[in-house]
Amino acid sequence: MMGVSQRMEQVLDLLGPVAHFFTESEYARRAEDPAICDFAVGNPQELPLPGFAEALGRWSVPQNNAWFAYKTNEPAPCAVVAAALRERRGLPFEADDIFLTNGAFAALAVILSAITDPGDEVLFLTIRVKIDRATFDLDLDAIETAISPRTRAIIVNSPHNPTGKIYSPAMLERLAGLLTEASSRIGHPIYLLSDEAYSRIVFDGRAYHSPTSFYPHSFLVYTYGKTLLTPGQRLGYIALPPTMPHREQMRSALFVSQMMTGYAFPNALLQHALADLEQLSIDVAHLQRKRDWLVERLRDVGYDLHIPEGTFYLLPRSPWADDRAFVDLLTEYDIFCLPGVVVELPGYFRISLTANDTMIERAIPGFAAAAQRGRSSPKYHAR
Amino acid sequence: MMGVSQRMEQVLDLLGPVAHFFTESEYARRAEDPAICDFAVGNPQELPLPGFAEALGRWSVPQNNAWFAYKTNEPAPCAVVAAALRERRGLPFEADDIFLTNGAFAALAVILSAITDPGDEVLFLTIRVKIDRATFDLDLDAIETAISPRTRAIIVNSPHNPTGKIYSPAMLERLAGLLTEASSRIGHPIYLLSDEAYSRIVFDGRAYHSPTSFYPHSFLVYTYGKTLLTPGQRLGYIALPPTMPHREQMRSALFVSQMMTGYAFPNALLQHALADLEQLSIDVAHLQRKRDWLVERLRDVGYDLHIPEGTFYLLPRSPWADDRAFVDLLTEYDIFCLPGVVVELPGYFRISLTANDTMIERAIPGFAAAAQRGRSSPKYHAR
Repeated sequence: MMGVSQRMEQVLDLLGPVAHFFTESEYARRAEDPAICDFAVGNPQELPLPGFAEALGRWSVPQNNAWFAYKTNEPAPCAVVAAALRERRGLPFEADDIFLTNGAFAALAVILSAITDPGDEVLFLTIRVKIDRATFDLDLDAIETAISPRTRAIIVNSPHNPTGKIYSPAMLERLAGLLTEASSRIGHPIYLLSDEAYSRIVFDGRAYHSPTSFYPHSFLVYTYGKTLLTPGQRLGYIALPPTMPHREQMRSALFVSQMMTGYAFPNALLQHALADLEQLSIDVAHLQRKRDWLVERLRDVGYDLHIPEGTFYLLPRSPWADDRAFVDLLTEYDIFCLPGVVVELPGYFRISLTANDTMIERAIPGFAAAAQRGRSSPKYHAR
Repeated sequence: MMGVSQRMEQVLDLLGPVAHFFTESEYARRAEDPAICDFAVGNPQELPLPGFAEALGRWSVPQNNAWFAYKTNEPAPCAVVAAALRERRGLPFEADDIFLTNGAFAALAVILSAITDPGDEVLFLTIRVKIDRATFDLDLDAIETAISPRTRAIIVNSPHNPTGKIYSPAMLERLAGLLTEASSRIGHPIYLLSDEAYSRIVFDGRAYHSPTSFYPHSFLVYTYGKTLLTPGQRLGYIALPPTMPHREQMRSALFVSQMMTGYAFPNALLQHALADLEQLSIDVAHLQRKRDWLVERLRDVGYDLHIPEGTFYLLPRSPWADDRAFVDLLTEYDIFCLPGVVVELPGYFRISLTANDTMIERAIPGFAAAAQRGRSSPKYHAR
């Protein structure tokens, strides 16, 4: 008489490789070791922005009796978000269409709980629908093929973690056309969940184009966790674009879904602080310099990798087909990276540029030595 | 081509009366009016505990690079919780069995996502299973009758919102016997979700007995939101009692469920502050004085109500069978209460003792006048 649900048993099986990395790998064992050069996850390796802690301290001081009372989608922070979106995106976003959440992951959970029934399918690129490995662009044929009558939604992440790809307006236009046609064929809208967590982490002066500007049945999902590099202090939102059909009903559904997902509204303190936090950002130019420095040095010592257009990540090909084994080899040089298999991209490994300059400098000889040992091993597969 | 799921359409219908109260009632329209004596929800009507804001301010100052990095169930706060439970409950709770959440509501969502499949049933007292209106005690016969082969869990809330009832050890013993027998009959465990949000808001020097001490297949759910009267700053936990069978599998399932529910871990700041917050409490003796004062005055002017054993609430019978109409009458005297129908107890209305002394004083003549008008109306049903 075991107790977890059948669904949970399936999920536990599916998550095997991910759970293994975070709980039983060399990384899990040595996570606290100061010798480590930690490139494994998009975590801060420097002190937070001074303005961030200041904002939390300032807004911790209660200004009225209701300071820490129940909060939902409070009018003031929602107005700030809508104004910021209007300014950044040039579209008439409304405060009533902003739904505040504990980061982007919670936002996705809230939306899916509002629009899916048991048995419905959601396309998540790189799981059901492999991305195109030559360009890291969307593979529209594969998306088309994956759509079934039960398809309710597709999750699109641009800039994309871990490839750093930003989808072009032309590509998003074609995706919108495909989804519109498929929705009409299957008789209900396929929603696009646009995970825009990295939309302000963009390099080389590129413009960011949101999928939500091209397709009306879409949800804009954002978190401040990347822009501020504070993923443990969770604050984000869902925004309905002004073009979304049946917005009134969707507003009610999202609000109820926020309740049902466990009263999933951000803490009072973060709601008070949001207007200040909206103004802050990590130094993206510095991140870009780290990208250029590390890409160059990694290529010098023999790694094969492209130059990402945004996000925190580099994605070299693993010299060995077994990316977990190569990531284990790197740990012998105190370098911790993420195996591609954990982000459904076997054959690659991911390097987070949130590492600090000292770590990068210290890690370069280790990356070089591992590349050399990698090439001279029978596991090496030349490409 | 509407977009929300069928499940959500059903929920939106079910929640009609609740949504109406919070979005379209006189209460919703006048919530910000300073003339109001607000007894409607368990919200603070005084400034928060000074120690609370101080703790947030103190722990906002980063002490290392990882201060606001990704957090899950961090070892230090989990150890604090386990130690506090060991001390308060006298049972050997373990830190590995503590799962930190954004308040109690999120804890329930996380547990249900770990143990239920689509089509499973969860008994929630006062919805499927009416409570006994003479004693406000559990109605074991009704629970027995409500159990089906699809029953996966029962949610028990003691002290109970809104009746203030604390279930006795003898009653919890009988409940455990009933659930053990029913589990064995239907071939899988029926879990008990013990919502103990008010376990530290107990009057008259009573002892609190947790249902989890009587039944091994149970989850202890707690939030600091009541003890600190800061419901907008969400922090709580799930604890597995040391007697729970298959604890290892359940630990994995809960952790994965925390991820799936939207990375539903408390903010870094609250995790850092937890040890300090664990020490704080509102003045329960003052709350008890407010209870006694208001019960006496309400009885004086003709209301029929019992004396609660815990929680924030009084629960007078509504002089009119239509509790929403009577609550509307009270608003004419600037008094805002919660209609019983919103908490599935039609024929009553709920008064929150979190109102401050001035509000209570100011409201007494209005309660008296409404009672008199209530009795002289054709809507009055003598009992």
